[in-house]
Amino acid sequence: MADQKDEVVKNNTDNIPDENPWKTLSTQPVYNNAWIKVEEHQVINPGGTPGIYGKVSFKNQAVGIIPIDDAGNTWLVGQYRYTLNEWSWEIPMGGSPNKEDKIKTAQRELEEETGLIAGNIIELLHLHPSNSVTNEQGYVYLATDLSAGMQQLEDTEKDIQVKKLAFDDALKMAQNGEITDALSVAGIFYIALNRQKYIK
Amino acid sequence: MADQKDEVVKNNTDNIPDENPWKTLSTQPVYNNAWIKVEEHQVINPGGTPGIYGKVSFKNQAVGIIPIDDAGNTWLVGQYRYTLNEWSWEIPMGGSPNKEDKIKTAQRELEEETGLIAGNIIELLHLHPSNSVTNEQGYVYLATDLSAGMQQLEDTEKDIQVKKLAFDDALKMAQNGEITDALSVAGIFYIALNRQKYIK
Repeated sequence: MADQKDEVVKNNTDNIPDENPWKTLSTQPVYNNAWIKVEEHQVINPGGTPGIYGKVSFKNQAVGIIPIDDAGNTWLVGQYRYTLNEWSWEIPMGGSPNKEDKIKTAQRELEEETGLIAGNIIELLHLHPSNSVTNEQGYVYLATDLSAGMQQLEDTEKDIQVKKLAFDDALKMAQNGEITDALSVAGIFYIALNRQKYIK
Repeated sequence: MADQKDEVVKNNTDNIPDENPWKTLSTQPVYNNAWIKVEEHQVINPGGTPGIYGKVSFKNQAVGIIPIDDAGNTWLVGQYRYTLNEWSWEIPMGGSPNKEDKIKTAQRELEEETGLIAGNIIELLHLHPSNSVTNEQGYVYLATDLSAGMQQLEDTEKDIQVKKLAFDDALKMAQNGEITDALSVAGIFYIALNRQKYIK
C-alpha cells in the first residue's frame, strides 16, 4: 500500500530543499497593536500561483511554566480567555518580549501568577502554536526547587484562580479535555512521558 | 509555602464564575480574508480598566490526523511554513470550514496529503492552539485501518514531502524538537501515553 511512501527520506535532514519555495512580492501593513502586527503579503505559492497571505506576527513569545514540587504537585491557572469567551485552565503562562531572556520571563510570570519562586528552570519544549497564520513561538519550562514568593496579578488577570493539584490530576485533565490550551497540554504530556526524570 | 494555594478548589468545576468578567464595548473590523478576520475590540478588562483587544478569528478549524498502520508506522508531512520561513515536519493537517464535518475533513486531508484512506477515525484531542490572540480550534484524530488511495496536493502544498516512519521515531522527533507544530506534538505525545490502546 502507498508504495511511494516507503521511498521517502529516512533521515530527517535529508532531502529538505535549501530554498523556501514561497516568494513574497509585496507586504501591506493592515493592523498593529502592542501585541500583534497583521500584514497582507502578495505571494507566489509553491505551486507557482499568485495569491495573498494574511500573516499575524507576535511581539511576544508565549512562555509556559510547569511547577513541580517535591511531593509531585503542580499548579494550574484558570481564567476566562477573551478570544474564546470560555473559562480555561492552563499552566502558568505569560508573554516574553522578543528581546527579553525567556528564563527571566518564566520566573517572573510564575511568581506573579502563583506566588511561587523557582530555584531551577529547565526548557522542555519549543513549539509553534499556530503556524498556518502566525509566527508565534511557544516555550514550555519546568520549574522546580519551589519556595514561597508574592503573587501579583496584572490588571487583565484579576479573575484568575490558582489551583494546586497532584501532577497526575493535571495529566488527567489534559487527557480528558478539561485542559485545551495547546502549550499546556503538550508540556504536561512531555513531563508525563519523562516522569522518572522530572517527578520524585 | 504558598499556603493559600492549598485552599483553592479541589474539583475542576467548583468555583468557576458563571460570568465572563471581560466586557466588550465595541468592535471595529480591521482585516478580512478567506482564512481569518481581525477585529479591534474596545474592552473593559477583568480589573475594570478600559483597553483594546486585537482578536483574530479563524474561518477554519485545524484538523490534524495521525495515521498508524498495523506495523506501528506513522506518516509525517514536511513543508516550508510561510509564516515561519522554516521547514516544518508535521502530522498531516488541513483546515475544516467551520460548518463542515471534521471527520470528513480528516479523511480528505489525510488522503490528499499522504495517499492514505482511513477505515477508522477517532478524535483524540480538542485544543486551543493560541488563545491569547485567536479563537482557533484544533482537533487531532487517529486514523487506522489504512489502505492505499490517491495523493492530490493543493497548489499551496506542492513542496510537501511525505515520510513514513516508525511511530517511535516520530515520538523521538517530537521530544527532541525536530517537530515543533503544537498540534502535532500534543497528538503524538497523547498516543505515546496511551500506546497500549493505539499501537499494535
